[in-house]
Amino acid sequence: MSKLIKKTALVGGGVIGGGWAARLVLNGVDVKVFDPSDTAERTLKEMLANAELAYSKLTMAPLVKQGNIEFVDSIEKAVKNVQFIQESVPENPDFKRSIINEIAQFAPESALICSSTSGIKPTSLQTKMRHPERFMVGHPFNPVYLLPLVEICGGEKTSDAAKQSAAEFYRNIGMKPLILRKEIDAFIADRLQEAVWREGLWLIRDDVATTEELDDAIRYGFGLRWAQMGLFETYRVAGGEAGMRHFISQFGPTLSWPWTKLTDVPELNEELIEKIVTQSDAQSGMHSIRELERIRDDNLVAIMQGLKLHDWGAGALLKEYEERLYEKAHSGIVASDPDFSEPLRLHDSQVRPDWLDYNGHMTESRYLQVFGDTTDAFLNFIGMDENYRKQGFSVYTVETHIRHVCEVAGGEPLSVKSQLLGFDEKRFRIVHEMFHPPTGDVLATAEHMLLHVNTNKGKACPFGKILYEKLAEIWNEHQNLDIPDYAGKGFQELNKN
Amino acid sequence: MSKLIKKTALVGGGVIGGGWAARLVLNGVDVKVFDPSDTAERTLKEMLANAELAYSKLTMAPLVKQGNIEFVDSIEKAVKNVQFIQESVPENPDFKRSIINEIAQFAPESALICSSTSGIKPTSLQTKMRHPERFMVGHPFNPVYLLPLVEICGGEKTSDAAKQSAAEFYRNIGMKPLILRKEIDAFIADRLQEAVWREGLWLIRDDVATTEELDDAIRYGFGLRWAQMGLFETYRVAGGEAGMRHFISQFGPTLSWPWTKLTDVPELNEELIEKIVTQSDAQSGMHSIRELERIRDDNLVAIMQGLKLHDWGAGALLKEYEERLYEKAHSGIVASDPDFSEPLRLHDSQVRPDWLDYNGHMTESRYLQVFGDTTDAFLNFIGMDENYRKQGFSVYTVETHIRHVCEVAGGEPLSVKSQLLGFDEKRFRIVHEMFHPPTGDVLATAEHMLLHVNTNKGKACPFGKILYEKLAEIWNEHQNLDIPDYAGKGFQELNKN
Repeated sequence: MSKLIKKTALVGGGVIGGGWAARLVLNGVDVKVFDPSDTAERTLKEMLANAELAYSKLTMAPLVKQGNIEFVDSIEKAVKNVQFIQESVPENPDFKRSIINEIAQFAPESALICSSTSGIKPTSLQTKMRHPERFMVGHPFNPVYLLPLVEICGGEKTSDAAKQSAAEFYRNIGMKPLILRKEIDAFIADRLQEAVWREGLWLIRDDVATTEELDDAIRYGFGLRWAQMGLFETYRVAGGEAGMRHFISQFGPTLSWPWTKLTDVPELNEELIEKIVTQSDAQSGMHSIRELERIRDDNLVAIMQGLKLHDWGAGALLKEYEERLYEKAHSGIVASDPDFSEPLRLHDSQVRPDWLDYNGHMTESRYLQVFGDTTDAFLNFIGMDENYRKQGFSVYTVETHIRHVCEVAGGEPLSVKSQLLGFDEKRFRIVHEMFHPPTGDVLATAEHMLLHVNTNKGKACPFGKILYEKLAEIWNEHQNLDIPDYAGKGFQELNKN
Repeated sequence: MSKLIKKTALVGGGVIGGGWAARLVLNGVDVKVFDPSDTAERTLKEMLANAELAYSKLTMAPLVKQGNIEFVDSIEKAVKNVQFIQESVPENPDFKRSIINEIAQFAPESALICSSTSGIKPTSLQTKMRHPERFMVGHPFNPVYLLPLVEICGGEKTSDAAKQSAAEFYRNIGMKPLILRKEIDAFIADRLQEAVWREGLWLIRDDVATTEELDDAIRYGFGLRWAQMGLFETYRVAGGEAGMRHFISQFGPTLSWPWTKLTDVPELNEELIEKIVTQSDAQSGMHSIRELERIRDDNLVAIMQGLKLHDWGAGALLKEYEERLYEKAHSGIVASDPDFSEPLRLHDSQVRPDWLDYNGHMTESRYLQVFGDTTDAFLNFIGMDENYRKQGFSVYTVETHIRHVCEVAGGEPLSVKSQLLGFDEKRFRIVHEMFHPPTGDVLATAEHMLLHVNTNKGKACPFGKILYEKLAEIWNEHQNLDIPDYAGKGFQELNKN
């Protein structure tokens, strides 16, 4: 089985299949899509646009080149010659079985086949297929392009090797695979969701709460906790210093109290459905589904970025994902032969919607953030990496002069060129020019004086050999460039300039 | 019943009572605490320290002066002369009843009495108390100082007026009260949590998943969704364009499939408890409870700040809360007579932990953020408010010169003084000096050239009368101040300077 899966097929292109398509192409994987519905192609392209917008906010790391997306008119055309197939057709056991059998008939023997089913056991789906050992459930969560969880559940005939390969592939496209220890109906997450769903239906039926009140009870309370620690770690903390055992001894007895509707499921008759639909319209009807999707995506992105700050849960996963993207991009820069006969272009970015101020323009401090990121890229380029810093050295900014030249709107791309203006034993002066690649317009400039320091002593000290020699190599050519007329005003002169 | 509740009592000072204490004093409310335990005072003070740290990250808005906290040695001393009492003693119906009766005996007739019980019906708690009409459940969620939800559930004898007064008080201290339509065991949120808890126990007992796998299934998947939209709005979106009815028709039938353990509760015997404790230790045992609390708080703060960006759910509530704090602080500034004989001090802040770079110092761009906030405060001060901007005018920064003078560590307070350096019909030049109030050390300076613009035309235009006259009034005195020797280098001269 090939380790690097680059060619995939999707059978079923609705909300789930479309979400898979977006995650795959945004991670550089080619997909062929088969869905007989007239609206599938339009819906899928709208989802991809939403996903692109979400990723532009999710990470500033340079995304890989998008994979291709191709719509085909049969399962055979979709699955021939691909390495991985994800099935996402409606939740009907017989229909799913027939589709999976057809996929298995035309797919290469070595191709992995995963079903997006929310709860049907894989053993019951793989009974009659060709090469059932490479089939399993890979159950994702909507929106598939943002939520990391994918539950992997094998059936009786599934091989361990196939599960490991699928897990590795899912990990490569930024997901968190959870391989189940046992095969059960509805797997893990949906059993928990189903329990809440059922309890929620009772509360609506009995007029205890509306859909909006139920949602508020979740999102202003335990929903915030569960986004980061789940249930058991949350309760461990709630137990206080006495911990988990104390918590259980305190709340264990309530299991036998009348705190849930245990013994029955509510009848989902027309009356109850009508009640839910009416309440849901009152709660969310002012937003179209597309609007709600964008709101949800913005919120999910913000939550994951927040968790990234603390290197925790879905945020820690995002951080790892970004590190891989930066590594790829950086290996690209290092591989190419740098040209010092003109300013260096080391940093690209994009104006994120949450960078805008009340005028709809990029907030002041974000300019300095982009310039700061460019300085970091320059420092990295001349050899100041994590290891160098670990030895107790760093570079501090002493002085900054920013000129705002042109406004820029949300979503626009940015790029920065950097010119060395001089250096001595422990300082260098650099000017960054931020421009808008499509038009070439200069947006802002920033001149910085930077100082090399010993962070343990908190004092300036000479550059190490590696940094000094790299600066000299760049300066050897940059000293021949024209000095911008706005540069140097108010800055101390450097010996070598 | 007094509208402005400033004097309260807490009976029970454990994890929940301590959380109430922190929320109340951080919102300027005085509390008297009764808890017979030896460790209550220490634990409560540790929680307050955690809460102070969390609030310093939660909002940059100026917090109100903290309320007082006083420990007393009887219920009588705690509840006499207060307007509001919150009971948070262990979850034992008889014990709770006796405590509530004692509270009601000594509290003023008009004082509201709320119980933090997680599930006991208020009717069963109010049977024998004095003035039962002012008693209800006010069920909060741990950590009480951060999570906004509080469920208000009245009993048969509770008055509507009392429920409304309690809701208003809870709202004033930043919470989201949810008044229940009907009295039921376990209210709303705990019925949902109990359902998941029970299902989770089955999965552990049957060795389908460990506590960590269950938590991962939540926090990498639906937990992220529930933090912002809850269950029903999430499913509405999942239904796609066909909406809620389509979703139900698709997943409704699964209610009768074997997707949950419906008919029984797992026996919580020693074997199952031991399994949970062992798994939880393996999952989280490397962190102390205090560490886990701080991790949880940092994550919750980050999630709420993220949601604030999009004005949604708990984030929208935080935004409203901050607006009230700013209003209070702003009315303070306007009320005092401004002194123009020295630089204006219009902005205070604090170095937030997430502002730190890999050196443990405040990141470059955060300096400009603080200076930008100071410029906003100055613009607000001279009359450029929301209304002024709505007329299509704004002020853009043209040029910025920052000098970094001194490092500053996380958690330290910052303050900024601002001196007008000159102005003409459509521009002004200002210098901000950021200093560390405890030592007076200057940390950084920023000089800005600002331009008044017509945002509809995208062109510079003269200041309106209000702004121009206010600038003239300040300049009348600021022109007599010494001009800093670093100022003006590289900047265009202004007519009036």
